[in-house]
Amino acid sequence: MSQAPTPRTRVRRIPELGVYDRDRVHAILDEAIYCHLAWVADDGDPRVIPTIHTRIDDTLYVHGSAASSTLRAIKQGLAVAIAVTLVDGIRFARSMFEHSMNYRTVIVYGEAQEVTDRDELAQVFDAITDHVAPGRSADARPPSDDELRQTTFVKVALDECSAKVSEGFPEEPDDDLALDVWAGVLPLRTVPGEPVGDPLLREGTEVPAYVADYRRPGQR
Amino acid sequence: MSQAPTPRTRVRRIPELGVYDRDRVHAILDEAIYCHLAWVADDGDPRVIPTIHTRIDDTLYVHGSAASSTLRAIKQGLAVAIAVTLVDGIRFARSMFEHSMNYRTVIVYGEAQEVTDRDELAQVFDAITDHVAPGRSADARPPSDDELRQTTFVKVALDECSAKVSEGFPEEPDDDLALDVWAGVLPLRTVPGEPVGDPLLREGTEVPAYVADYRRPGQR
Repeated sequence: MSQAPTPRTRVRRIPELGVYDRDRVHAILDEAIYCHLAWVADDGDPRVIPTIHTRIDDTLYVHGSAASSTLRAIKQGLAVAIAVTLVDGIRFARSMFEHSMNYRTVIVYGEAQEVTDRDELAQVFDAITDHVAPGRSADARPPSDDELRQTTFVKVALDECSAKVSEGFPEEPDDDLALDVWAGVLPLRTVPGEPVGDPLLREGTEVPAYVADYRRPGQR
Repeated sequence: MSQAPTPRTRVRRIPELGVYDRDRVHAILDEAIYCHLAWVADDGDPRVIPTIHTRIDDTLYVHGSAASSTLRAIKQGLAVAIAVTLVDGIRFARSMFEHSMNYRTVIVYGEAQEVTDRDELAQVFDAITDHVAPGRSADARPPSDDELRQTTFVKVALDECSAKVSEGFPEEPDDDLALDVWAGVLPLRTVPGEPVGDPLLREGTEVPAYVADYRRPGQR
């Protein structure tokens, strides 16, 4: 299933990198733990914050408590841009000019609506918990009504979004290929370290498998 | 040296996390490879893209070619917000509500100015090359005049910026501490893999030490 690009989702600079396939967009959204949420504040200037997100079908949910004063004030929908970025490596070229990153990114545009329905909020809590650590929602205590009220989630329909995927090796002219300069890709990966138990952990509480064997969806 | 927070850089939600110390801000900007740049487009809606940056003293330079149609159109300075984020781990709490990320982020606000001076452009090319891979600028071919003309960098003074640092373990009420649920921190790190040479690499070209032993400034 694919989506026609709109004027602002069309990837302009290097058109062949644009990806409008829904499954690839979903895979990037699901693999990335966090995103950057941008909006225009009342003063007309841009704001951007890092926050976590989760996807349920074709809706992106974003944790908005750090921006809740803005987000809650907007009842009619707040125009947002959301970037989700995975860096896969550094592309070393023989010229400074052709250096680049290998990465996958999704940009989503839309009107953010606050999630106010209690059941939907509870469902998003489960989903975002499992987004950060698949399997965790079965163990962690679900939110109380009070905690639900203290939490801001906003949702954006995945109607206007596109992925950009940059991969492979540098493309350089013959003059540069003749240079005696190393070129290639240094892969970069985000990996878990050893889990560190909370100092107040009850004695005998085991590290669950989804922590000990942590990996992101889509990663080997 | 510290900076007084402005209304928009003051960290509102969890005030004790706000960091206005210039050295800590610099360290986060220098360790992160890339950033997210947000601005308000002509249509009044927000835009955000991932891009790379570098710092020279108290000026942040951002590679803007992906947004160059917007950035070049603005000769008087474009209001931007730039987020630089390092994720250090997942903080597992006994309740879903107290789950969080350990992270360090810097948000910079300012007026972006295109870099038009040829010498400054060349200096930024060196700096951003070494930002991505410390040591690389000594080996890679410097940009030609043509390449300088094709590249957009914008700069923002680091006058209005703040860091937010979230670290440590979850703080939970006694009722939750009594639950038999694992809690703690799963550290996350971005690590290099094995360098992959370009298929067109000249025979006998060695992998340089700054690639083979790659690490970010500030990382052990």
